[in-house]
Amino acid sequence: MTVSDPPELDLPGVYRVEKLSVKAGMPLVLDMTRAVYPHAEVYGDYITVQEHIDVPPAELFDYLSDTRSLGEWTYSMRNFERVAEPGPPSGPGNSDDGLWVSDDKIGDHTRIYTRTVVNAGARTVDYHCAWDQSEHLWMIYLMRVIDAQVVFGKPGSVVIWTNCRHPFYDENGHPETAPAGRPVWVGDFWDLFYAGHLLELRNLKAIAEYRHANGLPIKPDWMR
Amino acid sequence: MTVSDPPELDLPGVYRVEKLSVKAGMPLVLDMTRAVYPHAEVYGDYITVQEHIDVPPAELFDYLSDTRSLGEWTYSMRNFERVAEPGPPSGPGNSDDGLWVSDDKIGDHTRIYTRTVVNAGARTVDYHCAWDQSEHLWMIYLMRVIDAQVVFGKPGSVVIWTNCRHPFYDENGHPETAPAGRPVWVGDFWDLFYAGHLLELRNLKAIAEYRHANGLPIKPDWMR
Repeated sequence: MTVSDPPELDLPGVYRVEKLSVKAGMPLVLDMTRAVYPHAEVYGDYITVQEHIDVPPAELFDYLSDTRSLGEWTYSMRNFERVAEPGPPSGPGNSDDGLWVSDDKIGDHTRIYTRTVVNAGARTVDYHCAWDQSEHLWMIYLMRVIDAQVVFGKPGSVVIWTNCRHPFYDENGHPETAPAGRPVWVGDFWDLFYAGHLLELRNLKAIAEYRHANGLPIKPDWMR
Repeated sequence: MTVSDPPELDLPGVYRVEKLSVKAGMPLVLDMTRAVYPHAEVYGDYITVQEHIDVPPAELFDYLSDTRSLGEWTYSMRNFERVAEPGPPSGPGNSDDGLWVSDDKIGDHTRIYTRTVVNAGARTVDYHCAWDQSEHLWMIYLMRVIDAQVVFGKPGSVVIWTNCRHPFYDENGHPETAPAGRPVWVGDFWDLFYAGHLLELRNLKAIAEYRHANGLPIKPDWMR
């Protein structure tokens, strides 16, 4: 049951204690650790934001799993309508609540499509979105609700939210579906997504904690 | 089906387009966006690292789901032995491969316990670990394997790895289980975890891509 050390573990770029002692490796690790990091290094290709939210994880997951919750805690997605029923599961334990269309108010007169794929065991909530068309949902907001008791030893939830820089942020892959003369593209805002997503995550925190602290359901009655 | 605007959405700290236009909100968002960010602001309470790995996600998930893979791609966990059979599922679709003990070579003569909880639908792999004892596994490495085709429009996987700063990193919550006179504690390394985890994630990338490019199984035969 012990690990053998096959030759392919001795590859360029692989740092293991057998070949690099803690003492010898320290300069390498210290050099990777900086006082400050440039924006593009931290938030260039991936944008991850995290927050502790003082609400039980099962309730928060249930709320986020409803696509219409985006109409409350996002800055600019509003007026959700369902346009198709739930699709087949994309993996064991996965489900979605159908395809939805809404307005994205940062996009002038833009329609945005969303299919929310969730997994109750892992408490993942993936919002698969796109501006203008629903054939190719390429803007993926990967969220996960973690039990804060497990990772921080305190009540509540931790929400982790990652967004990956799909090439269509830099150039619209479906320009023929865009309204004529629209002055903006969603990818124009990529450099502001760290701040924008953190602001939205804090919206979620403020709304959910307000409801929990006041004995209100996190998922409001009108969503039921 | 449209979103009503109940009074509780008009809370302090909630920024929504109805009350804050894009133009009016821009200074706020620009002020949150910096040229550089201090280490403690980005990696103080949460450490998230991400990498693209050019290996099919199902195979990479299968490899990571085996606790013994840690003996290959981590810097310092070695000599894995199973000490208990798999436990009951912690949620729908979740499973684990039992409790394992190994050496953690950064900890002098330290034993580390690991239970790996996975969810195949979401492709989450959570390593629940602790030094010295297995009653309370509080060092949680939250990983997820994403299909790069979905988020980047290219083959392979994206691995996202988050670690949360449990208070026991700052002070051992189970000091009675520590070997007498051990000169280090795992939390002493917290400030180096960004660099250390990135180095380990790149180990994983190098090993998995080498195997995939050479027609070898990602999960080696000795693990089967």
